[in-house]
Amino acid sequence: MIFRQLFEQDSSTYTYLLACERTGECVLIDPVIDTVERDLRLLQALGLTLTYTLETHMHADHLTGARKLREYTGSKIAVPALDRLSCADIGVAEGRPFPVGDLVLEPLFTPGHTSTHHAYLFNNGMQPVLFSGDALLIEACGRTDFQSGDPQALYRSIHSRFFNLPDETLVYPAHDYEGRQLSTIGQEKNRNPRLGNGKSLEDFVAIMNNMNLPYPRKIDFAVPGNMACGQCPDNVPEQYRGPCEITALPRDLQRVAKVGDQG
Amino acid sequence: MIFRQLFEQDSSTYTYLLACERTGECVLIDPVIDTVERDLRLLQALGLTLTYTLETHMHADHLTGARKLREYTGSKIAVPALDRLSCADIGVAEGRPFPVGDLVLEPLFTPGHTSTHHAYLFNNGMQPVLFSGDALLIEACGRTDFQSGDPQALYRSIHSRFFNLPDETLVYPAHDYEGRQLSTIGQEKNRNPRLGNGKSLEDFVAIMNNMNLPYPRKIDFAVPGNMACGQCPDNVPEQYRGPCEITALPRDLQRVAKVGDQG
Repeated sequence: MIFRQLFEQDSSTYTYLLACERTGECVLIDPVIDTVERDLRLLQALGLTLTYTLETHMHADHLTGARKLREYTGSKIAVPALDRLSCADIGVAEGRPFPVGDLVLEPLFTPGHTSTHHAYLFNNGMQPVLFSGDALLIEACGRTDFQSGDPQALYRSIHSRFFNLPDETLVYPAHDYEGRQLSTIGQEKNRNPRLGNGKSLEDFVAIMNNMNLPYPRKIDFAVPGNMACGQCPDNVPEQYRGPCEITALPRDLQRVAKVGDQG
Repeated sequence: MIFRQLFEQDSSTYTYLLACERTGECVLIDPVIDTVERDLRLLQALGLTLTYTLETHMHADHLTGARKLREYTGSKIAVPALDRLSCADIGVAEGRPFPVGDLVLEPLFTPGHTSTHHAYLFNNGMQPVLFSGDALLIEACGRTDFQSGDPQALYRSIHSRFFNLPDETLVYPAHDYEGRQLSTIGQEKNRNPRLGNGKSLEDFVAIMNNMNLPYPRKIDFAVPGNMACGQCPDNVPEQYRGPCEITALPRDLQRVAKVGDQG
């Protein structure tokens, strides 16, 4: 299989590429609209067909690249079924394995950051690999103070879905703001200052309710845009419009699009 | 395959178990004499045959469990060939792949912490996995101020053998003193305060030569003991003698030994 951890700087988002080498099919988990061209170049360089884009949740800090990638490659848009997005092609849910070629992702319903958040578990043959979305971050977790956030639900998700996984499980989060790339379940159980070392539900709720975080910079256009699978809404401010205004691919990438369209 | 990251608290050492599920053969990288019984219990629980113990280098901070494990299970002792240890069964060297059942470890000659240090690279199918020994630690590296340490050699080893691996490469170190379990090559290239962010050879040598670290607590008996593959020398101080004095296995572990003896 082929794996890449990709980073989008403005929102500090990790996008994950996971590909089945035998079939050449791949998925991009949480692609960002700002880095669609980079993603297409990578698909081209690796000779892969983008079968799916797959969201962990309705992002408030960036627009998803799902719609543009579908437009250019013919990929299908997969989102949590609970989101009931008419723009999506596939609804994922816990209990329904999500295959990509010979690889299988297992969706885990993990509400708390948002009410429909899903993480994706994968077995690489050596250890489980958790794409934890915004539920569990390295020594942190997603905020719970906007959209459908709920600290009690997040605590229960992390304990019931993540902390009973083997300690060796790799944790690949959707964000890191300090240049860290991954953690493990064992490490988070020990070191996560909000959740580790036996922190109780009450401790966690108190921490989360006292974060005093700033209002999310992009939420007013990101959420409506992501409800349309990454369609740029009219209210995108000038400084963030760049990626919205790219409507045609550079000539050298048109081949990628063609391959996808036939797929 | 089966993988476990095991921790020995007194020396903060990580021992790694890697097993081929098809054949039931396994290797323990850097076992510690203090945790031999734990290791045997794990082998028993997983139904594995210990084929090899494998050292990254001649440790100064703990006695290896290699000799006791061989005695109890019939495992073979593998060490860097450059160590020329007559007590060992196999000498490993860069360029000579080291198979364990269907799995293959690739030894990387990485002097600097000691002059014969080797790391082991493994491909798990998703990403390369580096057992980095004491050469590269998480946001740190092995000290270079005793035994055959050499900061210039260590800098070259890390740059020429590790930093040209893919960014996604998992880095499993031989120690961590803060409860962290792993890193990646990309993360260390960015965040390692001694080696990352374009630190020069001169920067690194200056940092390493000004560490003012305490004299290693166990070095006076660990190094001579490890030159005999983990034979306890006479000068082990009272407070560290415990593991040396265990000469017979608990009855419920004698089966493990028997399986190994036949192997």
